[in-house]
Amino acid sequence: MIGVRDVNPRVRAIRTPTSLQSQAAGITKQIAQGVRKPFAAVMDVSSGDPHRAGMAPISFVRQVLAACLHPELLKETSFPPDVRQRARSLLGACNGGSVGSYCVTSYGLPHVLRRVAEFIQRRDGGVISHSEDIIFSSGSQAALMLVLHLMASGEGVTQTGVLTPTPCPHTLPMLMDEAGVRPVPYQLSEERGWTVDAAQLHRALKTARRRCAPRAIYISNPGNPTGHVLDRTTIEEVIRFAATEGLVLLAEEVQQDSVFGQDRQFVSFKKVLFEMGSEYSETVELISFHSISAAFTGECGLRGGYMEVINMEPAVKQHLKSMQGSGSPALLPQLALELSVNPPAPGDGSYDTYAQEISHIRTTLSQNAQRACEFLNGLPGVSCQLPMAGVFLYPRVHVPQGLVEEAKTRGVEADVLYCQKFLEEQGVCLGPGCENGQDDQKHHIRLCVLAPTAALDDVLARLQAFHLRLRDTFP
Amino acid sequence: MIGVRDVNPRVRAIRTPTSLQSQAAGITKQIAQGVRKPFAAVMDVSSGDPHRAGMAPISFVRQVLAACLHPELLKETSFPPDVRQRARSLLGACNGGSVGSYCVTSYGLPHVLRRVAEFIQRRDGGVISHSEDIIFSSGSQAALMLVLHLMASGEGVTQTGVLTPTPCPHTLPMLMDEAGVRPVPYQLSEERGWTVDAAQLHRALKTARRRCAPRAIYISNPGNPTGHVLDRTTIEEVIRFAATEGLVLLAEEVQQDSVFGQDRQFVSFKKVLFEMGSEYSETVELISFHSISAAFTGECGLRGGYMEVINMEPAVKQHLKSMQGSGSPALLPQLALELSVNPPAPGDGSYDTYAQEISHIRTTLSQNAQRACEFLNGLPGVSCQLPMAGVFLYPRVHVPQGLVEEAKTRGVEADVLYCQKFLEEQGVCLGPGCENGQDDQKHHIRLCVLAPTAALDDVLARLQAFHLRLRDTFP
Repeated sequence: MIGVRDVNPRVRAIRTPTSLQSQAAGITKQIAQGVRKPFAAVMDVSSGDPHRAGMAPISFVRQVLAACLHPELLKETSFPPDVRQRARSLLGACNGGSVGSYCVTSYGLPHVLRRVAEFIQRRDGGVISHSEDIIFSSGSQAALMLVLHLMASGEGVTQTGVLTPTPCPHTLPMLMDEAGVRPVPYQLSEERGWTVDAAQLHRALKTARRRCAPRAIYISNPGNPTGHVLDRTTIEEVIRFAATEGLVLLAEEVQQDSVFGQDRQFVSFKKVLFEMGSEYSETVELISFHSISAAFTGECGLRGGYMEVINMEPAVKQHLKSMQGSGSPALLPQLALELSVNPPAPGDGSYDTYAQEISHIRTTLSQNAQRACEFLNGLPGVSCQLPMAGVFLYPRVHVPQGLVEEAKTRGVEADVLYCQKFLEEQGVCLGPGCENGQDDQKHHIRLCVLAPTAALDDVLARLQAFHLRLRDTFP
Repeated sequence: MIGVRDVNPRVRAIRTPTSLQSQAAGITKQIAQGVRKPFAAVMDVSSGDPHRAGMAPISFVRQVLAACLHPELLKETSFPPDVRQRARSLLGACNGGSVGSYCVTSYGLPHVLRRVAEFIQRRDGGVISHSEDIIFSSGSQAALMLVLHLMASGEGVTQTGVLTPTPCPHTLPMLMDEAGVRPVPYQLSEERGWTVDAAQLHRALKTARRRCAPRAIYISNPGNPTGHVLDRTTIEEVIRFAATEGLVLLAEEVQQDSVFGQDRQFVSFKKVLFEMGSEYSETVELISFHSISAAFTGECGLRGGYMEVINMEPAVKQHLKSMQGSGSPALLPQLALELSVNPPAPGDGSYDTYAQEISHIRTTLSQNAQRACEFLNGLPGVSCQLPMAGVFLYPRVHVPQGLVEEAKTRGVEADVLYCQKFLEEQGVCLGPGCENGQDDQKHHIRLCVLAPTAALDDVLARLQAFHLRLRDTFP
């Protein structure tokens, strides 16, 4: 008999998500039952889910995966030759030539890990990457969870702490809770486009050392949800900070392909680390996370990603590699990962289609972000930093005092109440800033802009109508 | 900086798998490098992996999944109409009509959960099944891990204990270690075909209560690796035992479709529970596990399964449902689950092919098991219970005293050494009984018989040659 009091305290500690998702589900149910609403369906822009929003998948990825699932398709000529060739090569890497067999290791198919290492080495201008340092996992969150679980230990002042940006990805606080790791918040600098401020890191660490044992720093670059892309100087500062303080560097670099800011390029922590010389490149423990859920591939439903693990003690890395041992990782998302980091090259039969599709996504994302940012900055009481990358905008919203009071009496955060009312009135689900770890008086909302342009325009028009009316209601 | 001593004690406790897998990988590498061996390649029959062994997948499942991945295929007429219809219906259940979107809940697509509940209700002759009791997970091991993690608490005499059969599935001991749950072994009765013996349950429980807090009983039916199918009377005994002792019943029923014993049928714990009257059906907490990796579907690489959770306190069930919250479950394996529990019906365009494929698998499995069992019983010092279901044989093997001594000096289990020598000499990887939790003097080996008949014959011939020579070497 398991009563609530018998449940693992660690499981009981998992925060329940805000009620917005269930509110959205409730409204969808009402519409299905014939209840009339001022909108036809609920739109959820609170998370980055390009396919749900109506973006199309990359044809090359889907064709190869379909052929791997049903190899009879290889006999036909309806797929381009490079699709068939890639499918044959990937099936050759699976036991028994089938995606239905178990993975040979708990950390991924050797062929896929090699191809990921090749990709990283190309990306970083030749800085070496070893396939033994690559661990496949079912998404960057699952990978991060393994690392947090690996590091979790102690209680009170000995409990493992992880320096965590404010704002952070909205999925992060729940992961830390579940792993039993204590978040140590450091504030990003909104007025400087959400960059990392070294003084904030030192301040956070100093305060934290009285409460827990900080052992890692988590950083999101390009920033989720901020869209900020770190410059090389800041990356060097963070690396020196990690080196001096003996912290493991956890670099979430999922949106590395989706940089659209005019004067900024993505540079990986790995590349900078190795260009800082052996004093750093041979000592600083770095784990970099990537995922097929990111903007361009957008395969959130397949669940795949990898981490590259640098300078970790071999025995510890071995622990990390064996942690998925209880469940051999799925094969299809591994193949999707191989395809997403090694897309068709010029001259390949699929290249033209692929290039067009990528260009369409890039243009949509860049234009949407720019236009939506301008639009939001035109609303009274709203200010939004221009993002350089990623799929989110994260504007600051002045919530009228009357609504703040109402939120207090209802026992919810003011930004949550703002989102609840918007959802109820206009059928659009935003993400409240408190989910991103912000609990101060500066309220923010999170919205994904990777959607067909017309759909995004509709969301913005609804937000304008709601926001203006709210200001009239609570003057 | 993470040193080995900093690693989460729970992670450090994970047992490393026996060296057989890495030995097999080493031999495969040698062969690739041109080292000559008396065999062309290593065959691994230690786990149930039908596709690796050369069994073909179910065409219907693969066609629908391929069409879901690449909906352009729906425009062509190369797939039967029921394949296209099913693909459309499944895509309709995914956000944005794409398998690349996130799952709407942490426990599965509502459409898939409903279809699973319908399957269970059909299977159990109308005993009601509610979709709210179904939780999708990436395989039965992942599902069990969630449950163990939910129940894990305490230390010493308060640590959660789980009654565990000897022998048990070879993946179970590692899961328990990882979850921090204490296994409480109860011996199955080999001489009675590996059935459950109620006296053993009582004995195990009584002994365990001095050492930990037993809170659940795990049972595998059809038995992995024994192939035993429990009769109704024994199931009733187990249910009464769980009821009297207040234990949660964890029923691994993964191989429910693969019964080939002439005079035995699979009856689910759920069905028996509900036919024992409200005294039991309204009180006993039962969790039943199923998987798409099982014999007939055999989609081990897709990673999908479900659990049905009966009579669990609602708040506890809610915890269980939200535990996968950190990673939204993958969509394709959910669709594969829907397809495997709702195959084509007579009259559907795919039915004839489906029926032929299932019949081929059933015949192969049944004939292989029977022939292999007879063959093994013909070897001196080997005795094998005739299995009634599942994919394994689990014969007892008399290991010569000389080999037992050699194992002692090498610090390995005698059954492991037996398997190591067999692998080195003949290139076949068996499972040693100690992986199934057996640490007594009765040595066993585990081999999967779901393979093309010629491949299995080859394995048996090699085993005979090795076994007989071993007896000559150690008289």
